[in-house]
Amino acid sequence: MRYTFLGPEGTFSEAALLSVPGAYDAERIPSTSVVTALAKVHSGEVDAAMVPIENSVEGGVSATLDAIAAEGDLRIVREALIPIRFILVAPEGTLMEDVRAVSTHSHAWAQVRGWMGDRLPHVDYIPGSSTAAAAVGLLGGESPGYEAAVCSPIVAEQHPELSVLASDIGDNARAVTRFVLVAGESAELPEPTGADKTTVVIPLPEDHAGALMALLEQFAARGVNLSRIESRPTGEALGSYFFSVDAEGHIANARMGDALRGLHRVSPGVKFLGSYPRADGVAPLVSPRNTDAAFNEAEDWVRRIRG
Amino acid sequence: MRYTFLGPEGTFSEAALLSVPGAYDAERIPSTSVVTALAKVHSGEVDAAMVPIENSVEGGVSATLDAIAAEGDLRIVREALIPIRFILVAPEGTLMEDVRAVSTHSHAWAQVRGWMGDRLPHVDYIPGSSTAAAAVGLLGGESPGYEAAVCSPIVAEQHPELSVLASDIGDNARAVTRFVLVAGESAELPEPTGADKTTVVIPLPEDHAGALMALLEQFAARGVNLSRIESRPTGEALGSYFFSVDAEGHIANARMGDALRGLHRVSPGVKFLGSYPRADGVAPLVSPRNTDAAFNEAEDWVRRIRG
Amino acid sequence: MRYTFLGPEGTFSEAALLSVPGAYDAERIPSTSVVTALAKVHSGEVDAAMVPIENSVEGGVSATLDAIAAEGDLRIVREALIPIRFILVAPEGTLMEDVRAVSTHSHAWAQVRGWMGDRLPHVDYIPGSSTAAAAVGLLGGESPGYEAAVCSPIVAEQHPELSVLASDIGDNARAVTRFVLVAGESAELPEPTGADKTTVVIPLPEDHAGALMALLEQFAARGVNLSRIESRPTGEALGSYFFSVDAEGHIANARMGDALRGLHRVSPGVKFLGSYPRADGVAPLVSPRNTDAAFNEAEDWVRRIRG
Amino acid sequence: MRYTFLGPEGTFSEAALLSVPGAYDAERIPSTSVVTALAKVHSGEVDAAMVPIENSVEGGVSATLDAIAAEGDLRIVREALIPIRFILVAPEGTLMEDVRAVSTHSHAWAQVRGWMGDRLPHVDYIPGSSTAAAAVGLLGGESPGYEAAVCSPIVAEQHPELSVLASDIGDNARAVTRFVLVAGESAELPEPTGADKTTVVIPLPEDHAGALMALLEQFAARGVNLSRIESRPTGEALGSYFFSVDAEGHIANARMGDALRGLHRVSPGVKFLGSYPRADGVAPLVSPRNTDAAFNEAEDWVRRIRG
Repeated sequence: MRYTFLGPEGTFSEAALLSVPGAYDAERIPSTSVVTALAKVHSGEVDAAMVPIENSVEGGVSATLDAIAAEGDLRIVREALIPIRFILVAPEGTLMEDVRAVSTHSHAWAQVRGWMGDRLPHVDYIPGSSTAAAAVGLLGGESPGYEAAVCSPIVAEQHPELSVLASDIGDNARAVTRFVLVAGESAELPEPTGADKTTVVIPLPEDHAGALMALLEQFAARGVNLSRIESRPTGEALGSYFFSVDAEGHIANARMGDALRGLHRVSPGVKFLGSYPRADGVAPLVSPRNTDAAFNEAEDWVRRIRG
Repeated sequence: MRYTFLGPEGTFSEAALLSVPGAYDAERIPSTSVVTALAKVHSGEVDAAMVPIENSVEGGVSATLDAIAAEGDLRIVREALIPIRFILVAPEGTLMEDVRAVSTHSHAWAQVRGWMGDRLPHVDYIPGSSTAAAAVGLLGGESPGYEAAVCSPIVAEQHPELSVLASDIGDNARAVTRFVLVAGESAELPEPTGADKTTVVIPLPEDHAGALMALLEQFAARGVNLSRIESRPTGEALGSYFFSVDAEGHIANARMGDALRGLHRVSPGVKFLGSYPRADGVAPLVSPRNTDAAFNEAEDWVRRIRG
Repeated sequence: MRYTFLGPEGTFSEAALLSVPGAYDAERIPSTSVVTALAKVHSGEVDAAMVPIENSVEGGVSATLDAIAAEGDLRIVREALIPIRFILVAPEGTLMEDVRAVSTHSHAWAQVRGWMGDRLPHVDYIPGSSTAAAAVGLLGGESPGYEAAVCSPIVAEQHPELSVLASDIGDNARAVTRFVLVAGESAELPEPTGADKTTVVIPLPEDHAGALMALLEQFAARGVNLSRIESRPTGEALGSYFFSVDAEGHIANARMGDALRGLHRVSPGVKFLGSYPRADGVAPLVSPRNTDAAFNEAEDWVRRIRG
Repeated sequence: MRYTFLGPEGTFSEAALLSVPGAYDAERIPSTSVVTALAKVHSGEVDAAMVPIENSVEGGVSATLDAIAAEGDLRIVREALIPIRFILVAPEGTLMEDVRAVSTHSHAWAQVRGWMGDRLPHVDYIPGSSTAAAAVGLLGGESPGYEAAVCSPIVAEQHPELSVLASDIGDNARAVTRFVLVAGESAELPEPTGADKTTVVIPLPEDHAGALMALLEQFAARGVNLSRIESRPTGEALGSYFFSVDAEGHIANARMGDALRGLHRVSPGVKFLGSYPRADGVAPLVSPRNTDAAFNEAEDWVRRIRG
């Protein structure tokens, strides 16, 4: 197996990838962006890509949501939840009072703003293309224009020449990022486990309140809860949206299959992005009217009458 | 073929039965009540019964609604619409001013009350078990306690010894009664014609507003209109109801099959009473999302993904 | 106070009227029909009429539903629940084996059919205009054409010359009829008690499933349960209906006022027929979002913003 | 009047601000971030801030959505639509073939990626804190680490020492960004014009499909369309969301007031962020049942009955 992840080495994406059985010994190629990572899956250069999709503080990762919605032939086959912990690193010998500018990815910066306001209130922020890249930038010969970087603990392990000025500097101790492992369309559909998720992308017609209700009703009418729902612009015009949705259950479940059939009739452009086990293993509560047995009995009843 | 109808001879039910191809030459046995007529179908004594189900002025015929709901093995295979016209008959030689009491069925009486108030304001009303029975009662030797009867024109044709005191005395010139031809459960399901009706009986759970909405939603979500909806008590307690519903379409239509499957999950006690051609031949408007093609494409889409 | 009731004396309607405080000593005028009784209220001849509206076995009383819907100026101010018990009476000296024909109101006959099938299987049924009238008919000099009548126990008390052949002959021991006391529009609105009902009549537009859902949603969206819902034909055409609905709560409750406002916008022909205490005293469960306080806070919030 | 905008000078935000009558001659203070701009409104340092809220290509501006949702005392009083056109600038004398690295804001970069792939496929991307800052960075004495910047045409006008290497390099010619003018809570509510928008922020309870439907129903039931709906994380946990919604209409409209009252009952934490004229002047279609007149008649009807 060959994997890619949102690099460079030391990102939370790599940590997520390492949670996949066998990934430690597999080939792991860093990509410089989500778009690049998914393009490698598309071209067959790698078997799957581990990319961030949702952060508990910053929300959906737009680049990922848009890229997997745009590509027609990808499948999410697995998810991973990674607690997000930030550290402040600098070249050896740097003191806290030496730090006048800090670099990191803008999402990371948003999550340490409180700590910075308390401890380094006058520091300048220099945008970086990733947390790891900001940290590694400190190690080149010439000055990168900043004295410290915010990154994940894994970076410090991989680069002992960086010293840790402060640990656990995230404003929200429970911050977590969800990553998805994205394979090609021909990847085998993961078996249902009883605690699964299904991800779909649904174009939204004109009238938003009514149209969105018609879509949601397809899930609600079959007792299918949604664990994530996000709107993203189609790019065509202001107010033109699609919805990215995670629903509780597997397409092999009768209620989910029925909800997807209803969705397809209401919005024929709906895209299926995968059914896969939930990382937290929580099984949904299914009412008696929405079990596979209830669906099968209803199906049999109609079939018998039709003769 | 052997038929029964709500008798005696000369009722609107017989007129409805005569609209069935071949019924004129078939055996036609009158029954004294809807319950008796349906019992003859149940026992196999006749092949089918023609009974009234709905009147445009008086509403649903409770006896029929309750009887076909209670029996588990009946099938509506045809409907007939009969314009309701009333005449006033009396033994030959009777004058309008001789009439002091009039007999007829209570439903008929309700439909001529306006005319009676104008023309015979002081007349007494004597309940009769049917319109035809009230008329025939005038022909026995001894006085039945009334001088005239309200009945259908067909009775006067069958009994020339009755003279017609007045014609078209119904208060509502457009009054019409709908009759259904009820066969046994083993009767063949009529072929879909594109302009059909499906009749079901649905027990209603506790909370009326919410529960009824959940039932109606099964039809509305598939674009299936209802042409009749009536509540009837289950007889168990005040507020315990079932619903008798006519929906536009045939169980062979994908949208109707899907609505019935949904209904069966929400209310597993639902009973199917038949799919049959509409007497008025009006085909429903079906939106693109509810055609057989749309359902088949959705079905195929899910099947392909499931692999 | 002057009252009328569906007579003659001895009917269940009179029993219901006697449950009204002060009615025992007030003037009580029997009426021969529900229509006549309500006309007396309309004309001011009496202050109020006690009429049956719903029977647990036979369902809604069509005559009452239609009459109170048609009149524009009536108000239900009270309800009464009367357990329905039937007895079989005959002139003194009559033996069970002498009975060849039995008379009673058709609703009563429907409720003793099981008992009759067991004990008097070959008896003929003669329709009567009321249970009491059938019983009283036995007391005239000449033969009424039947030997016994089914009526309420109160008739036997009022007419000691009738002997009771059998008691408690109703097929359903828990049968109960609900009566309503109907006054003129100028009657004072009864105070809310916390356990009230509101009765409305709602014309139903064309498309039944969707239109009915829009009406029901007005109640459901405010957490208002319905204790009775019945369809009745408008008389104009097959499939043209209005709905008669009892909703739990008083128009003085914020949630009910809001539901009625919504109903008026969706179906401007809605008629208010009264808010009055429930006979069973059962108070509804009201969720925190539907309390008067929740409505008042929402109202205040919008008013403050509007400034 | 004193205004702030997302600076530095030359940003699209400043262009949006200049569309406000009187702003050209008013004091206009640049802010380095949306958070800083809104803090200046909060503290009273300025009267209002012009900030981007939604881009037709990149979607909602998370920083703005989160900041105006978090602050409790802000009011949107105006919106502006600015077509987004990008140019590529460099210090005088720079040739296209000299460009090895380009800086701009990440949102801008996302919108010129196609053009870059065609014309400068091997260029490196250097994140900048704003488009204008990236451009101005080229003018300092020492090398900023890049040779060109992507910015708005207004920057080139303000800095004649920059030369324009290419114009209209955006991938989507119809790209437009919506800006809002945010004042303090005590700002006067703009008068309704007949073509208005109302912005609210709504916390979403647990079960997403059902809860979201209950919120949307408040708008749909009053015929209020939504022109924007976006989910944002509350930051508390994965799957904990609030919704940011633009609805068509003004809180002074009866239907909008009623929808907001319903919303407040269902989700008492709802926040009102303003009613203001639509930049495009498009008036909504209002059905007869949702006019102010329909609401007033319903209100009068209930008030008359309550007495």
